[in-house]
Amino acid sequence: MTRGRPRDPDLERRVFDAVIEVYAETGWAGFTLDAVARRARVGRAALYSRWSGKAALLVQALEVRSPLPVPVDTGTVRGDLTELARQLLDGYTGPAGLVTLRAAMEARVHPELLAGLTQTLNTSRLLAAREIVRRGIARGELPVGTPTTLLLELVTGAVLSHVLFAPAGPRDPAYADVVVDAALRAVRP
Amino acid sequence: MTRGRPRDPDLERRVFDAVIEVYAETGWAGFTLDAVARRARVGRAALYSRWSGKAALLVQALEVRSPLPVPVDTGTVRGDLTELARQLLDGYTGPAGLVTLRAAMEARVHPELLAGLTQTLNTSRLLAAREIVRRGIARGELPVGTPTTLLLELVTGAVLSHVLFAPAGPRDPAYADVVVDAALRAVRP
Repeated sequence: MTRGRPRDPDLERRVFDAVIEVYAETGWAGFTLDAVARRARVGRAALYSRWSGKAALLVQALEVRSPLPVPVDTGTVRGDLTELARQLLDGYTGPAGLVTLRAAMEARVHPELLAGLTQTLNTSRLLAAREIVRRGIARGELPVGTPTTLLLELVTGAVLSHVLFAPAGPRDPAYADVVVDAALRAVRP
Repeated sequence: MTRGRPRDPDLERRVFDAVIEVYAETGWAGFTLDAVARRARVGRAALYSRWSGKAALLVQALEVRSPLPVPVDTGTVRGDLTELARQLLDGYTGPAGLVTLRAAMEARVHPELLAGLTQTLNTSRLLAAREIVRRGIARGELPVGTPTTLLLELVTGAVLSHVLFAPAGPRDPAYADVVVDAALRAVRP
């Protein structure tokens, strides 16, 4: 995704901060490398020499900042799923989480964004989440043939729906446990 | 929401079409009454005399066009929830569905939009969905004390997650049934 320039962690940090801020304000339509350069106080040349376009830049920023689940391995499927639900619950309520969800939606109407997002972000993160279920089956906690996609969609979806449509205000800290217990009951034969 | 002018269904239809189109392209940041007036080929005065601002116009358009569940009453809780899941599955994949979801997210960073959306759209539609569960309990299909919010978040959330993150392509027509069966198992004591 990045071009041949040497990596510069401080520059990347400032640029990715700016990507999240600018996208949160403008969405895909108003999102430009120039706006990111101005916000990050980085020269346009430094940006254009590192990223080939706005889709590449957004996808890489989300790879780093997105709250989509990062690999967890607590030793039990219940522990892993609860940690995943907690990560999503925290992540979706923050700026990078909102940007990730909006990008996933805007990608449906902007094919130039869809390719990059689907290829990298969704695929890699979803594979990590599927590993949780695979290990649970291997340990005998879940029966062979447990519907992996359905189980993950129940957990991630309930969290998403909760974040988007539940009234704002303090959240129940036990929500992750409640959702995971319910989703595990749902997929038992 | 509308001002004192007499209703004009044809004008409203063209304006609401334009609202969905313009918002899909620009999001909240670029969304203006002027842009809607141009797209709908409606005079600015006609728009400004009917809607007090862009939040009022968007909220009313979504009230009419949003795929959030409309009341269903098939006679069984399973039938009602499956119909609700099908509506959401179809609706979220269309332009008005994407706009509804984006607006729900953008409202988290734009308080002037949040007030209108929460007050009207989410509240009225969620109450209708809760009625499905209430009737199921009254008919004895679900035990008293069934966690209504959790059941609805599992169904609507799984559909949402499926639409947003599953690979594009033809969808399994039985997905609504699978999700509803799972969600009903999840909330059984």
